[in-house]
Amino acid sequence: MILNSPEFSRLLNPRAVAVVGASADPDRIGSQPVRFLTEYGFAGQVYPVNPKYAELAGIPCYPDLASVPQPCDVAIIAVAARHVAATIVQCGEARIPFAIVFSAGFREIGGEGIALEQGLKAAIAASGVRVVGPNCIGIMNVPGRAYMGFGPGFRNPDLRQGPVAFVSQSGGFAFSAVGLVDAQGIGFRYVVSGGNEADLGTLDFLDHFLDRDDVEVVVTYIEGIADGRRLRAIGRKALEKRKPILVWKAGNTGIGRTAATSHTASMTADYKLYRAAFHEGGFVEVRDSDDLADCIRAFLGRKLPRGNRIALLTTSGGSGVLMADRCDELGLVLPPLQPGTLERLRAIMPAFSSFANPADFTAQLSGNYKLFNEGLRIVLDDPNADQVVIRYGAVQGRAATRSCGRKIWRRRARPPRSRSWSFGAGRRIRPRNRSRSSPSSAFPGVSPPRARRMPPGYCTSSRPRSPRCARSIACGRWSG
Amino acid sequence: MILNSPEFSRLLNPRAVAVVGASADPDRIGSQPVRFLTEYGFAGQVYPVNPKYAELAGIPCYPDLASVPQPCDVAIIAVAARHVAATIVQCGEARIPFAIVFSAGFREIGGEGIALEQGLKAAIAASGVRVVGPNCIGIMNVPGRAYMGFGPGFRNPDLRQGPVAFVSQSGGFAFSAVGLVDAQGIGFRYVVSGGNEADLGTLDFLDHFLDRDDVEVVVTYIEGIADGRRLRAIGRKALEKRKPILVWKAGNTGIGRTAATSHTASMTADYKLYRAAFHEGGFVEVRDSDDLADCIRAFLGRKLPRGNRIALLTTSGGSGVLMADRCDELGLVLPPLQPGTLERLRAIMPAFSSFANPADFTAQLSGNYKLFNEGLRIVLDDPNADQVVIRYGAVQGRAATRSCGRKIWRRRARPPRSRSWSFGAGRRIRPRNRSRSSPSSAFPGVSPPRARRMPPGYCTSSRPRSPRCARSIACGRWSG
Repeated sequence: MILNSPEFSRLLNPRAVAVVGASADPDRIGSQPVRFLTEYGFAGQVYPVNPKYAELAGIPCYPDLASVPQPCDVAIIAVAARHVAATIVQCGEARIPFAIVFSAGFREIGGEGIALEQGLKAAIAASGVRVVGPNCIGIMNVPGRAYMGFGPGFRNPDLRQGPVAFVSQSGGFAFSAVGLVDAQGIGFRYVVSGGNEADLGTLDFLDHFLDRDDVEVVVTYIEGIADGRRLRAIGRKALEKRKPILVWKAGNTGIGRTAATSHTASMTADYKLYRAAFHEGGFVEVRDSDDLADCIRAFLGRKLPRGNRIALLTTSGGSGVLMADRCDELGLVLPPLQPGTLERLRAIMPAFSSFANPADFTAQLSGNYKLFNEGLRIVLDDPNADQVVIRYGAVQGRAATRSCGRKIWRRRARPPRSRSWSFGAGRRIRPRNRSRSSPSSAFPGVSPPRARRMPPGYCTSSRPRSPRCARSIACGRWSG
Repeated sequence: MILNSPEFSRLLNPRAVAVVGASADPDRIGSQPVRFLTEYGFAGQVYPVNPKYAELAGIPCYPDLASVPQPCDVAIIAVAARHVAATIVQCGEARIPFAIVFSAGFREIGGEGIALEQGLKAAIAASGVRVVGPNCIGIMNVPGRAYMGFGPGFRNPDLRQGPVAFVSQSGGFAFSAVGLVDAQGIGFRYVVSGGNEADLGTLDFLDHFLDRDDVEVVVTYIEGIADGRRLRAIGRKALEKRKPILVWKAGNTGIGRTAATSHTASMTADYKLYRAAFHEGGFVEVRDSDDLADCIRAFLGRKLPRGNRIALLTTSGGSGVLMADRCDELGLVLPPLQPGTLERLRAIMPAFSSFANPADFTAQLSGNYKLFNEGLRIVLDDPNADQVVIRYGAVQGRAATRSCGRKIWRRRARPPRSRSWSFGAGRRIRPRNRSRSSPSSAFPGVSPPRARRMPPGYCTSSRPRSPRCARSIACGRWSG
């Protein structure tokens, strides 16, 4: 049975959360969600459950799930593995529809763990309780302040909010990535650690997030998916909904697959099968957290280019060559500039500039942002450019900001010029509900403070490593 | 003719520098080296040359090269392209052995530029003056404060000093990379922008830097090398000298090669030919500035592992899987831990830990650095591990530092334990002259402030993107 959206919403936005195995000992993981839920502004009720205490963290503590008040939507379970199945049965009896099981020591350790997981599955089937985990680190609803997890990733109440949802088969990994992407100015709405997926799995969450109006971009880290057919169906749904799924697939090599097997015991098929599914569309593959941040930003800019033709401007020939290499690797093309463009450039630029594509205005133009911007204006008019990319060399800081053509961008962002407009513009992505908390700028490869002052959809970089930003530029080809 | 080292030293450590085309106008590139050489602590003489001025920047200005006092080792040339050949002849007449030509508008623009470059080559041959450029942005001797260039890369007098030399076929690119690597706590000694290489080329500088006692690691950015045989000979020399050349090769794809041709007009052969040369040894290929920083750090740690067997410890299964993938891609192996190691680990670690390789101590151990370190100590004794790598998940800051095993490292870094010692240790690289100004720590993938507190040769990361650090770990296999 696939949950429908209103049901899932009770898991992500619970009215009340019980914590079974709540503890006053800060070293025990059962102590953590109690603290997070009472201290970070969660508006719902929190019910610690532990017969040892009458109260915990200044609120009443309950001896068992039967005595927890209704309606309670989620039980967090942090007891030893051998008690988990019985606790799920108690959730059912207490009419708690969802459980998040932190407890480890199931399928992933083999041996008796496998038997314990079978018992857990039987309890799930008998009780009708829907379960996240076991062996997960929890779920976070950032704007709802529902920090239903444990570990260092949950200890930051100041995480940014944004219209991004993240479903991960590795909890520790997901929250590391959330921290790094947060540091680049991008916020999340939901983060889900799926653990062993004894019941609810990655595909259930992906499916649900594609339906949610408050999610614009979906991110997933996967080690293994058993249902390849459903994975492909979800890719098609992503295309229909015009909502990309950024997928970070691990366990792709011989060693990596062995490691994945002992991590979440996911069956991980040959990488080629996944790549084939990803190439059907809907998915955008990323390989590290910088890729992830850049690609999220590209999509949140809500403007994608019409095609794969790039005009590349640089003040450093070498940076242009590196970027050209990456564009080639990613299936982007650099057509020659049109004769009219060349004529207009030659009329104003120094003779030693190169007007090929990449066009190299050379380091001698580094300080001269006015002339640089005049050149940029001309290239923007070139009908062959679906996207204009600026690659600085050593130019950083204010000089880079001033040669960013911000005013140019503003003037040209309005129709009817949009056809020749090409800062990653053209075809506009319209999410059904634009989230208020989403970033207003999208600027891959530039440090966050500067990025916030940049126009949406504008792709450039002041860092030489930023052949990386080619990945996000290539997002323009997302839907094929 | 190949220059021998004492001659080359006059170029890198000049007693006096003339600047032809010196200017009082800060917008003209001829103004910049005068300012850098007079303001940043250069101990030699500076002779601006321009008949328009009697003095410039508070020092006497000379009407022509003939009137410049001797001995003058370097002339910087910042005049229009059509005057460059004549100026080289004047350098010869004034007995100035080296010229650095900023002027652009030669071979790289085609047409009349090609003829101008032929004329320049004739002047070089006739005068005996050795020339860097044209179309270069200069040379920097960081500790010698000889900032003989222009552009934003030269505007930072506070660049770090270190035993690293960088030869680049793109000046703008080189100085961007220097800035980024500097920000990661790594300093340079010499940075050379070769430009069109009408005379002295990348291979001459690589050859020379391998000979220099004050250089431990050589870095090069190349777009094209005409003399493949000499490239391979230099690789062999690097192995003999036990001094790695980190090579960043661009212009590898169809589009990238076209771009390289219009940049420095280098003939760039098929990438496969370069890779073959690199694989013979001596060279380590890098692909972006993070790779570059990580690999420099790995070599400056001066300890390389004996082999390619990695023991990987993590608190995040997903991070372990990603890292295992990267290790596989780079030819590293993760052998199972020895039975004795497993027995000792099982005696102290929680049952839900995984003792495969990667060993996952799980997020539940994130805060427990003492237990983590006990586990680390045990794994370090495993005779199958040439190198131990720690991959945290969301653990950062003080917790990561405390679980770094710094004390463990110190105790075990001394022989006779070095055989089982494996933080990138084992085979020791002994450069002939250890530079005093070189970094005392080497810690790929960790932010600079923490990195400085870490022991040399220690490879880990607190960042999830750090499957990247696999590149520097693989440096251990440098010489094959």
